[in-house]
Amino acid sequence: MNDLAAALHRALPALRVSADAADRVAYARDLWPRHHLDVRAGNVAEHRPGAIAWPESTADVQELVRWAARTRTPLVPFGAGSGVCAGVLPREDVVVVDLKRMARWRRFDPAAPSLDVEAGHMGVPLEDELNRRGFTLGHFPSSILCSTVGGWVAARSAGQASGYYGKIEDMVAALECVTGTGDVVTLRRRAHGPDLVPLVVGSEGTLAIVTSATLRLHPAPTSRGFASFTFGTVEAGWEAMRAIFQAGLRPAVCRLYDPFDAMIARRGAVKRERPARPGGGAREREHAPGRGTALLRSILRRPAALNGLLATRAGARAMGGAMLVLVFEGTDERPVRDAEEARRIAERLGATYDGEGAARRWLQHRYSISYRQAPALADGLFIDTMEVAATWSRLGALYDGVRRALGESVFVMAHFSHAYPDGCCIYFSFAGSAATDTPPGGWDEGCQRVYDATWQRALDAAIAAGGTLAHHHGVGRSKAPRLGPELGAGVGVVRALQRAFDPHGILNPGSLVPPVSPDPYMHHAPIRTPASREPA
Amino acid sequence: MNDLAAALHRALPALRVSADAADRVAYARDLWPRHHLDVRAGNVAEHRPGAIAWPESTADVQELVRWAARTRTPLVPFGAGSGVCAGVLPREDVVVVDLKRMARWRRFDPAAPSLDVEAGHMGVPLEDELNRRGFTLGHFPSSILCSTVGGWVAARSAGQASGYYGKIEDMVAALECVTGTGDVVTLRRRAHGPDLVPLVVGSEGTLAIVTSATLRLHPAPTSRGFASFTFGTVEAGWEAMRAIFQAGLRPAVCRLYDPFDAMIARRGAVKRERPARPGGGAREREHAPGRGTALLRSILRRPAALNGLLATRAGARAMGGAMLVLVFEGTDERPVRDAEEARRIAERLGATYDGEGAARRWLQHRYSISYRQAPALADGLFIDTMEVAATWSRLGALYDGVRRALGESVFVMAHFSHAYPDGCCIYFSFAGSAATDTPPGGWDEGCQRVYDATWQRALDAAIAAGGTLAHHHGVGRSKAPRLGPELGAGVGVVRALQRAFDPHGILNPGSLVPPVSPDPYMHHAPIRTPASREPA
Repeated sequence: MNDLAAALHRALPALRVSADAADRVAYARDLWPRHHLDVRAGNVAEHRPGAIAWPESTADVQELVRWAARTRTPLVPFGAGSGVCAGVLPREDVVVVDLKRMARWRRFDPAAPSLDVEAGHMGVPLEDELNRRGFTLGHFPSSILCSTVGGWVAARSAGQASGYYGKIEDMVAALECVTGTGDVVTLRRRAHGPDLVPLVVGSEGTLAIVTSATLRLHPAPTSRGFASFTFGTVEAGWEAMRAIFQAGLRPAVCRLYDPFDAMIARRGAVKRERPARPGGGAREREHAPGRGTALLRSILRRPAALNGLLATRAGARAMGGAMLVLVFEGTDERPVRDAEEARRIAERLGATYDGEGAARRWLQHRYSISYRQAPALADGLFIDTMEVAATWSRLGALYDGVRRALGESVFVMAHFSHAYPDGCCIYFSFAGSAATDTPPGGWDEGCQRVYDATWQRALDAAIAAGGTLAHHHGVGRSKAPRLGPELGAGVGVVRALQRAFDPHGILNPGSLVPPVSPDPYMHHAPIRTPASREPA
Repeated sequence: MNDLAAALHRALPALRVSADAADRVAYARDLWPRHHLDVRAGNVAEHRPGAIAWPESTADVQELVRWAARTRTPLVPFGAGSGVCAGVLPREDVVVVDLKRMARWRRFDPAAPSLDVEAGHMGVPLEDELNRRGFTLGHFPSSILCSTVGGWVAARSAGQASGYYGKIEDMVAALECVTGTGDVVTLRRRAHGPDLVPLVVGSEGTLAIVTSATLRLHPAPTSRGFASFTFGTVEAGWEAMRAIFQAGLRPAVCRLYDPFDAMIARRGAVKRERPARPGGGAREREHAPGRGTALLRSILRRPAALNGLLATRAGARAMGGAMLVLVFEGTDERPVRDAEEARRIAERLGATYDGEGAARRWLQHRYSISYRQAPALADGLFIDTMEVAATWSRLGALYDGVRRALGESVFVMAHFSHAYPDGCCIYFSFAGSAATDTPPGGWDEGCQRVYDATWQRALDAAIAAGGTLAHHHGVGRSKAPRLGPELGAGVGVVRALQRAFDPHGILNPGSLVPPVSPDPYMHHAPIRTPASREPA
């Protein structure tokens, strides 16, 4: 046991604490792909936390935070570690606070309907238990197998059915959290005065540690409507999405795949005929190690050229065009009627109707896609995703700008999900490699150089196009340095909030907002907003 | 010109400023009924502002705020003065900032669709202009004739069609505002990180002065579906509202009237057969002065007894039961289908279907009801409304508790509007009088004593029942002292935000949050939260 763990144990002997080597390596990371490259290069030491603590009650969290405030010990709240933006990236002097032992149901209100549940509850068991009672939360992030309620709230998560059920912030009716001074605050959604819940949702553990959330529930769906379409161009596809949402239709799932992503999705859907189970994705990886990697590698010989080809109408046609998948949910016949209404709108805008099959298959394999990165990473490539958003009128500029920026160095595909009446999210998937076969410093360093340059260019392009840095993966440490250019004086507001909630700066320092002094373990200097524009 | 106006004029000679006696009386108030009693008693001096300023640009507001920050002069932002909670209640040392000269359209984006409009734009001309372009904002507060965009945002307004279009906070995509340090901050709704827009929405001018808002628009409705129903009890009626919203239906208008309110509404609807026009209410008042007052007066001889009678099933039957009115809106045949679906649900829950008539009439006279208070006030009574909200599971306790508390001293009726899947707003209307015919201190003081005691009891009852203090009228100065009991430690969070946005405390001091030192012109001492629970 190291000094930090020993000090914590002396102060709070009843709290479960570990400084075992295995635990410290296991908690050294989330799923930030850049960190995978570090690990692949053998750098496992840098981000090991000093200790891990497992509180079992709000009182435990309160005690722990008060101790941390007294001793100025940074705390990193931890759910299931499936974030992809380095929201969790500890250091030797940090105590990771794993909340998974806080997973009790506190109050189930079938009338509202709502559930007050502790932050450490995992996604799939929660949804399964709600289904048994005839309800659904309606939140289905691809990470549902490896994410918690607290993680969803902290990162402002969006699920695959956000078109009908909304994002997590729409589901949160109240939050219990512990601020950086160890005060327990319950924030309830109210109809009057400032709404304080949206401050903590998305604050990525920097304002308070969420200990429980009262979540709005919905009747479990008993009927669905399906439809899928092909469009000649992705632009025609998103015009149909816009028309569908602006007509007041709310498909739970509305996903438009660009031609290459559509081709992959069709391949996947055809290959994986198997009943729906969240576990499906994980199993599949074991059964088919490295599948898809050879294809990606060959493609990556000439990313720029191929990206260019895919951008042409001929390329789009060759791959079968863009694919739109719709799934409506409900408890009566409206989902089927709404799917027909959506079909009328899409066909009026030039879509070819492909029947229900692709949409039904998508639903069967909804969790598979997220588990296909590891093999490629294992084979010396890097893969990542970038989700940005803009209003409909800026969507084209955002798509073209980010696609061009990424396309200079990596192979890019995209799909459009999480549509709203006034805008949409673009989800880019990209795969890259080192610039040469024998990069100085070795293969992984070569990959990291390309990776960093690619992200820098892509985020600049997103901001230049008037888009957002992120949509539902959060900001973390990987994008924090760019929050300034996007939020402007808003960063000053966030800093003022942090001073109010966490005066000692002990809560997940370095995530979300660039620290005022350069963060010792970020690779780029933080960007500051001019003091004159800061409200605080 | 007094010293304050003179100093302001010297500092900002280009700014339009007045200290005329007539202006100072005109801007001494909003529509807080208690203040009407003061005015009726001849107390017009107490709340006259020192001066009124009419900025014409964000730069003007910035200059004005910087001057106010330097000179520590309190500013009271002013829209159209139709608030009912003393959000506007100036003093001799205050400059009222009337924003109505800032009413330009800055950016109209038909694709999003959205409109960036300055804060001083009035409601009806805005909606009319949008309709001409084929759009609607979907925001129809009863005050639409006498309220502005900035006022809606500051008070977190709800319109009559909130069931489909949401409250104003759902319509705001971005806000430009000037903080208490004179910094111009633009806050945009983003998908990631903390959402800062909800901080300023509902902050009642205490965090920043809103100078423009980017509002989400909708296609103007081209089709509607209507339905109205009778229920034996109001409880049966709200169970139907709950079922309708939890089935995923979104009636733009969904209003349930308790038996007496229903009787009044039916009388009104029958009497006023005349084409829809926002002006209708105002005109009607001129044509029929004091109508309804005689009725109210006779009723008020025995409020408690009558309240008791109305609460019985026999009383409810005698008045024709509770009435539910539904209006669905859209651009295709779905509103009609959804009205049929709602009818199936309501009838399954014991409703008698009354056809479309009452709902169509309600829509025709949607703005009339708000203009019927003045005559009663003129005749020596007082009338007020109280809107509170709770989750469905607490609604019964909230209705019974507040109804009983009000009913001790005033005659109460209620309707239920602004329903959500998880809860609903209750809108109480009440009329009272002095306790005796010859009260000590005169009739108006007698009314004020009853008025203050009534509100005190009613707010205590709302909080005790787990309801909110308000739903869409705001908090203002009239309810600020009770924010503590409702928000708990949340008040500390709001105070911390105020310190961050307005370090000199010059923005509408005394509204929303009780001042830490007792407000010199409030009639009750402010309530503080224990420092130990304050996060700041």
